[in-house]
Amino acid sequence: MAVYTNVDEAALARCLADYAIGAALSFKGIAEGVENSNYLLQTEKGRFILTLYEKRVRAEDLPFFIGLMEHLGARGVSCPRPVKRRDGRAISILAGRPAAIITFLEGLAVTHPTAQHCRAAGAALGALHRAGADYEARRANALGPAGWPALALAIGGRADEIAPGLAATIKEELKYLDKAWPRALPAGVIHADLFPDNVFFLNGKVSGLIDFYFACNDFTAYDLAVMLNAWCFDAAHRFRPESAKALVAGYGSERELAQAELAALPILARGAALRFLLTRTIDWLDQPRDALVRPKDPNEYLKKLSFHRGVAGPEGYGLGA
Amino acid sequence: MAVYTNVDEAALARCLADYAIGAALSFKGIAEGVENSNYLLQTEKGRFILTLYEKRVRAEDLPFFIGLMEHLGARGVSCPRPVKRRDGRAISILAGRPAAIITFLEGLAVTHPTAQHCRAAGAALGALHRAGADYEARRANALGPAGWPALALAIGGRADEIAPGLAATIKEELKYLDKAWPRALPAGVIHADLFPDNVFFLNGKVSGLIDFYFACNDFTAYDLAVMLNAWCFDAAHRFRPESAKALVAGYGSERELAQAELAALPILARGAALRFLLTRTIDWLDQPRDALVRPKDPNEYLKKLSFHRGVAGPEGYGLGA
Repeated sequence: MAVYTNVDEAALARCLADYAIGAALSFKGIAEGVENSNYLLQTEKGRFILTLYEKRVRAEDLPFFIGLMEHLGARGVSCPRPVKRRDGRAISILAGRPAAIITFLEGLAVTHPTAQHCRAAGAALGALHRAGADYEARRANALGPAGWPALALAIGGRADEIAPGLAATIKEELKYLDKAWPRALPAGVIHADLFPDNVFFLNGKVSGLIDFYFACNDFTAYDLAVMLNAWCFDAAHRFRPESAKALVAGYGSERELAQAELAALPILARGAALRFLLTRTIDWLDQPRDALVRPKDPNEYLKKLSFHRGVAGPEGYGLGA
Repeated sequence: MAVYTNVDEAALARCLADYAIGAALSFKGIAEGVENSNYLLQTEKGRFILTLYEKRVRAEDLPFFIGLMEHLGARGVSCPRPVKRRDGRAISILAGRPAAIITFLEGLAVTHPTAQHCRAAGAALGALHRAGADYEARRANALGPAGWPALALAIGGRADEIAPGLAATIKEELKYLDKAWPRALPAGVIHADLFPDNVFFLNGKVSGLIDFYFACNDFTAYDLAVMLNAWCFDAAHRFRPESAKALVAGYGSERELAQAELAALPILARGAALRFLLTRTIDWLDQPRDALVRPKDPNEYLKKLSFHRGVAGPEGYGLGA
């Protein structure tokens, strides 16, 4: 959650003059999205989210993200759709930062997802992968396997401040994953961060997916592995096989999961757990004194990683062949 | 700005069942209000603000605040109005905290108020004082002169971490204000914190006043002195006489300012500057490492206090007799 940048109402009015959505009736910083400053903007024409892209989102990646939301929205995925300016562009400059106005989605994120929520969210991911299959822009996964050694290097010797032995665990894991990581699996555009706070529900149904700012090209099953970690453990970080079964079944209802993808889930889940362990460790060690963001606990992902290290195949998740 | 407490969507649904405003369609933590957790809640019946009262608001004060918003709202002041539960009460318990649902107000706060904004906001304060005159509940001003020595004591020797000599300045100022503070001025219910971020505007007109959680009984002219500090200095903390004239004229258009009140403005403004200097100093020195709130700079109010110390009478503000 984040609001980093204060937007002057006069600067907002000047910015809105470039759009055809009328003047602002209310404007509130909201606690949504970790990387950017987000505002709920009500104008004479409706409700929108105004996002200021802070330094962790690279300006040169914005066309990929904006284009992806347009692409998915046009194919029936309920995701924010960029609002174009009068000059046809989707990016403005506001408070010295790149900014976009996107449509507002109703719905509430679920704090403790049930198996039913997992089924619905899995289906939404499958539909996203189908809709994204013909998206032509490309973006490498900066936080994928190729990026992990650099993250580990950035942490350096301080990993053991998080948990004794963590530095050694990370080193072993990097070595193992480098050898064991799948070389060939179905790939496409992935969300890469579909945690429960990025999925809105209304009446038990998925009403929208948000926060596409980690989206990239990678193995589509890696996206499912991210969700296996984020959706299928309870509050005490114990694995919930019923949730995993529902997630995978939901996914399969929208896009068929190949046998090789199912077989690769344990290794992909280990990698996904390592990815969030690494970035959470960095955020935890780096937090500035005046941070508006409370970092998430890296130890949650250390526990999940340890669990996956004990899983030999998909049957370890309760997933049958 | 603050969002302290996470509210589970299931707990929210249970809470909303006690009201007649339908189910939640969206729910977002907003960066508004320093003392409480605030959420923008959209239901099937409209938009509301849901507030969780955190520890700095005492539960026994809530009836005063809630009753005041009802009272003022019924008398035409555009302020949030508490939404009653089906059982007639206005306070719920949510996430272990007292909570209230209040109506949503459109409008935007102004970052750099012009003299015209000051005139309109001054008039809104005068109207608030008129409408509050027959409010019967009472609440002492915990952050008034009687409370300042305890605040100074809480800071102790650490004041000089903010500015060299600050401890001595505070001591002198407390001594001076104790002797010079007015004994008899018109009194009533005051907002006590009517900063620009608590006044919404639409098309140059005041559309609403918010955040009544410092409201109390005190000299009404003290409220004007708080605004003189908060509205009538520029971004470099230089006094703006045109803004002060407009503020006082606006106020006078709604409630006549007695000669004794005008004469007391310099001493009241010194006291108001000291009050915010003291609380900002405490917040600055106390900020926890994981704070979601970036404290405001106490030095702004040290500069304002220094300015008022050089003002002998209202003519020092450009205010005529």
